[in-house]
Amino acid sequence: MSGLLVGAILRSPHPHARIVSIDISEAEALPGVHAVIHAGNVEQRPYGYNHDNVPLKGEKVRFIGDEVAAVAAVDEETARRALELITVQYEPLPTVFDPFESLDPSSPQIHDELENVEGNVAMRWDWDHGDVAAAEAEAAAIVEGMYSAPQAAPVPIETHIVIASFDPAEHLTVWSPIHMVFMYRKELADCLGLDWEHITVIQPPVGGSFGGKIDIDPHDFITVMLARKTRRPVKLVMSREEEFIGTRTRQPIHFKLRTGADADGNLLFRDAEIVSDNGAYNGWGSHAMLVAMQTITSMYRVPASRVRCAVVYTNKNYGGSVRGFGNPQATFAVEQQMEEIADALGLDPMDVRLRNANQPGDVTPQGMQITSCGLEECLEIVREQSGWDKRRGTMRERHRGLGAAAFVHVGGGARIYRSDGCGAMVKVDDSAQVTLITGASELGQGSETVLAMIVAEEIGVPLDAVHVINSNTDVKPWDVGVHASRTTFVAGNAAKLAATKVREQLLETAVEVLGAPVDELRIVDGVVEVSGDEEKRMPLGKLMRRRLLREQGSIVMATAFYDPPTQMQKDYYGNVSAAYGFGAHVAEVEVDPGTGMVRLLNLWTAHDVGRAINPMSAEGQIEGGAAMGIGLALSEELVIFDGQIAAPNLHDYGLPTAVDVPRIVVNLVETIDPRGPFGAKGLGEAGIIPPAAAIANAVADATGIRPRAYPMRPWKVKEWLDAGERSHVARQGAADA
Amino acid sequence: MSGLLVGAILRSPHPHARIVSIDISEAEALPGVHAVIHAGNVEQRPYGYNHDNVPLKGEKVRFIGDEVAAVAAVDEETARRALELITVQYEPLPTVFDPFESLDPSSPQIHDELENVEGNVAMRWDWDHGDVAAAEAEAAAIVEGMYSAPQAAPVPIETHIVIASFDPAEHLTVWSPIHMVFMYRKELADCLGLDWEHITVIQPPVGGSFGGKIDIDPHDFITVMLARKTRRPVKLVMSREEEFIGTRTRQPIHFKLRTGADADGNLLFRDAEIVSDNGAYNGWGSHAMLVAMQTITSMYRVPASRVRCAVVYTNKNYGGSVRGFGNPQATFAVEQQMEEIADALGLDPMDVRLRNANQPGDVTPQGMQITSCGLEECLEIVREQSGWDKRRGTMRERHRGLGAAAFVHVGGGARIYRSDGCGAMVKVDDSAQVTLITGASELGQGSETVLAMIVAEEIGVPLDAVHVINSNTDVKPWDVGVHASRTTFVAGNAAKLAATKVREQLLETAVEVLGAPVDELRIVDGVVEVSGDEEKRMPLGKLMRRRLLREQGSIVMATAFYDPPTQMQKDYYGNVSAAYGFGAHVAEVEVDPGTGMVRLLNLWTAHDVGRAINPMSAEGQIEGGAAMGIGLALSEELVIFDGQIAAPNLHDYGLPTAVDVPRIVVNLVETIDPRGPFGAKGLGEAGIIPPAAAIANAVADATGIRPRAYPMRPWKVKEWLDAGERSHVARQGAADA
Repeated sequence: MSGLLVGAILRSPHPHARIVSIDISEAEALPGVHAVIHAGNVEQRPYGYNHDNVPLKGEKVRFIGDEVAAVAAVDEETARRALELITVQYEPLPTVFDPFESLDPSSPQIHDELENVEGNVAMRWDWDHGDVAAAEAEAAAIVEGMYSAPQAAPVPIETHIVIASFDPAEHLTVWSPIHMVFMYRKELADCLGLDWEHITVIQPPVGGSFGGKIDIDPHDFITVMLARKTRRPVKLVMSREEEFIGTRTRQPIHFKLRTGADADGNLLFRDAEIVSDNGAYNGWGSHAMLVAMQTITSMYRVPASRVRCAVVYTNKNYGGSVRGFGNPQATFAVEQQMEEIADALGLDPMDVRLRNANQPGDVTPQGMQITSCGLEECLEIVREQSGWDKRRGTMRERHRGLGAAAFVHVGGGARIYRSDGCGAMVKVDDSAQVTLITGASELGQGSETVLAMIVAEEIGVPLDAVHVINSNTDVKPWDVGVHASRTTFVAGNAAKLAATKVREQLLETAVEVLGAPVDELRIVDGVVEVSGDEEKRMPLGKLMRRRLLREQGSIVMATAFYDPPTQMQKDYYGNVSAAYGFGAHVAEVEVDPGTGMVRLLNLWTAHDVGRAINPMSAEGQIEGGAAMGIGLALSEELVIFDGQIAAPNLHDYGLPTAVDVPRIVVNLVETIDPRGPFGAKGLGEAGIIPPAAAIANAVADATGIRPRAYPMRPWKVKEWLDAGERSHVARQGAADA
Repeated sequence: MSGLLVGAILRSPHPHARIVSIDISEAEALPGVHAVIHAGNVEQRPYGYNHDNVPLKGEKVRFIGDEVAAVAAVDEETARRALELITVQYEPLPTVFDPFESLDPSSPQIHDELENVEGNVAMRWDWDHGDVAAAEAEAAAIVEGMYSAPQAAPVPIETHIVIASFDPAEHLTVWSPIHMVFMYRKELADCLGLDWEHITVIQPPVGGSFGGKIDIDPHDFITVMLARKTRRPVKLVMSREEEFIGTRTRQPIHFKLRTGADADGNLLFRDAEIVSDNGAYNGWGSHAMLVAMQTITSMYRVPASRVRCAVVYTNKNYGGSVRGFGNPQATFAVEQQMEEIADALGLDPMDVRLRNANQPGDVTPQGMQITSCGLEECLEIVREQSGWDKRRGTMRERHRGLGAAAFVHVGGGARIYRSDGCGAMVKVDDSAQVTLITGASELGQGSETVLAMIVAEEIGVPLDAVHVINSNTDVKPWDVGVHASRTTFVAGNAAKLAATKVREQLLETAVEVLGAPVDELRIVDGVVEVSGDEEKRMPLGKLMRRRLLREQGSIVMATAFYDPPTQMQKDYYGNVSAAYGFGAHVAEVEVDPGTGMVRLLNLWTAHDVGRAINPMSAEGQIEGGAAMGIGLALSEELVIFDGQIAAPNLHDYGLPTAVDVPRIVVNLVETIDPRGPFGAKGLGEAGIIPPAAAIANAVADATGIRPRAYPMRPWKVKEWLDAGERSHVARQGAADA
């Protein structure tokens, strides 16, 4: 790109400090430097949830890594040298890193400038359904405990890269790996005072995201600011270190959970107090509570539930949305308590799960309308395949154990914005090539292939006849973006609707050209066939040319927009998704009692995917998710001391490698959802949800100790073993009654 | 582009020769060479009109520049060195360069391999209407003469550049500056045995074409063959020399024309014998006769006409379609005879033109249905502005003269293929940004702006709210391509149809949101207004968000396909265009009698454009066209000796520069065509058509000599002056009667 400059960001070395002064004169004087920007010389407005952030901080910094200044220079080296020449005077402020401490009104106030924030509580999510106190009184057993999930990172192989360029007419084009191009466009405009009609966002092929590229980040705005200032295209590439420090992570969440059941194992209530450690600013991650709450109120039939949740600011790098979005964390708590309470009642945990399993037609207390539901079948498959009934509880002397976990997750979109829609345009030309222009974004999850399959199936053409176009806001119809495992369901339905119209137009022409009634025609593998008349079959290309190459001819084009039949939640109640995915995992582990090392031997998984449109890719998604879940369970953690990420690199972070992942058995359960395209439901996040819970339960089965946190790294497991960490049973089970 | 190789072509040094042998072994052995291809080691099929060409010649070569072999190498230098290492043995064959000689059956036969070619006649175009013999008998005056147009070149500033790349799934993407991307895709597939469903053609911004990039050329195929052979992307850039020698030019045409009129100046007949010197192969240029014939039969009301035309092969580089496509050549003959016959009759040529002018509602003998027609008005404007009535015929002693010429040209598409259609898709999103995805191609002619204006006007949004997307066959709906000044008319009508649907959808939402009946609503400058209620006005962005951001919401999308109401000609009869453009020029020249140098002093032009959608750009198109017409008239020529282009470079070719072009007065006459978008007609070629004829007439007025050929370079004019070249009057005019 001609004239491309390199951008770089100066970040705060302090976890909390007032900016006293900033001197950019030396940096500006460095040959090759085209712009040095900071809060004092740019136009920017607060952005994000709570409007608690600005791209470049002017008053104070709130975590180590906060953006203070940025430069654009002719090359990387000059840009880095220029950063060194910027002098910032800070006045350090008292800090708070622990979210429970942060809740104390006497703690340092991180966002004292925000009027709508009380203390350090960014958001509260409170929920009451049914009479928890009465249920508690009735319960034959109650278990309780505190379960903690760490700060983890999405770790895409490609770090964030943004290029911004203004053309002479002030039209801005941004190349960004963002998931949500249309929302991104609006946020860029709102924050920078640009006209969003004159912004094009192009999503090039993305080298992985896993949620880390869902949010707009300061570096996105900064790249645009630098391009605006220099009148040159600017590229900003996050180093691996910056990727860990300066982009969004999975925030730590702490669940104080109580579960009660009657003597037969019927669940009576759940009561949760949750503290989500948000870090210095809000992001989409602050809404992970939305999903965590669903799992607490609606994973299995739970008549009464209560949730108190505080999303808390601390002086740390901040949370974002990562695959699973609160659900691995919530499931870690909920599904451990399913086994803890079964044990307390002397029941088999699988029996307890099946007794309480969600059923098709259920409306959960939070308003989730369960359409298709394969939870029972999933549980039975993994029970059978793992030899659960014979093996669970029998292998402790060999330090081996089995543990299970199930999950529910949105599988038909999630209306967290006022539209959950997606548009599609399909055209067929004289070569019979079919193009789908979809609002959806491909992040490597395989959505292009699935959407092509849906269109190919609906029209009746070979898969390779369908081309999917999906990268540019100017070209593609609106879509809210990739999140909540929604693409196959929402974009798939939109594509299918448009493809149906296309098939109808093709058949109209076939009726005319072939002289057969429409009910005797079908399109198979790109050929129009006439029932009982082999002679009349005609390839679609030829049919299209008959349609086009005449006076008043035309090609075939159709558009569709699909917005699922869901509602925005009101007071956390409402059916946010048009369908829900379910599944169950059983993990088998071996724990070294000497070192605390947990080795995962087997993982059996069964997933209700509605319909596996692309079975190989569905299995791949589940395996990939499960591998990430195994990483969360056993090794991944951003270790932070005094607000400083200790080792922001791939070597120390603890990403699992191939040798850490055993063979994963994937069973696809097809429940043919009534609303899904060909019955499909979303499954992109599913695999990551149960492993941590299932592995924790397996560790408990193997050792008798109860894992309270993940990752279950050896030294922690050893500590629990040494301390004899047990399930906390507040009321005794039926076994003893 | 990673792994990009450079392609280069070995061309024949002989105008006609048999290829005896070809040895590529040394070239293949050169380090850095990835492929050496020739007819013997590639798959190719004949292509083009008459299927008279193949990309790489195996049997014989037919002009100096014919493609014999090609290489792909790591860089330009290696590729050029490899070409030098290819040894080709030729056996020279007798040659023929003159098209009249070529008609002689004893001449060397250039395409003896083609069964459907008789002698060297590639095509014949014969036409008869009315009784020419009877008309001839009646005529008070008959003029006759031979008028010749030279070989000229389109000379875009950017030469041809093609990049071809196969992906691992064998999908081919080609970046090419071609006008007609969909036809190109098909021709690539047909010639190379590829599946056209798996070809994407992308037209990047084009550095000028003027018709030179309308045809698919051997180098296009060769680039793809090299990419296929090497499994690497290959780029082939034509040098300026190759651009002159190896791509299409405006073929020389010779008109033997007779025109007869009665004593009042009413035209009675035209009789034409035309020889088009096609060069070695057919291209689109061979069809320039289609346009030339229209001008002979239908420029002014001509009751009887006869055309005999032979398109003839010669051993020269071959003709293509260049702006004006036969019309500057035909008009040079026809409009000189309008002045010659008026002079013979003692009438004013303007009076004769007006007396015979086409009128709205006319159907010409060839079947052209004249809808709107501003010919009379155009003639009157330039007559008035040039001071014609007082000045013509009065300035000979100052060696100055005035000459006029009018034209007719298709202005509503041209159905030369079975579809003349174009598709459009329009979407409006939540920012109120409007995207038009058009089948049309932007070549620098300004079509993107005009199409955006049409959409903006039709919907009621500011121009800069409309983005036009038009470069990629996967994305854009089918269009036949850029030719025949059709884009504003055909693509404009398609865009307008889609925009109308969009406006209707927007108004539906406005009715709902604003609670006003649709007939009280209008969209002005991006705002929906309610008659008599200022309070209720709402910007479209807000309206769109009200439409989208709700349950079951949607954005606005619409598609349309427009194929003009025209017919394919049958025996050269039929209304090929939905509208026709007209215009008239008057030129004023001064001729240096000592040197023959013609200096153009003034050019007054008036053009019936239907409606000037973008007046500045319409003027620019006409000025640009007129400048090219001035170049044709006075200086441009590819001088060829024995089949060798003498000086294939910009310095010698004779392209006019700014100092060669006087101020051009442009008058836009708006006749509001009933079928054009907002009344517009095509005008892209218009400007180039009359200048050569008008300047020739002005030279005749200034000097009394009659220019028989262009370019009117000084040495030719001096020769005519010395020889006393005069109009040939076969029958005396009324003045002498």
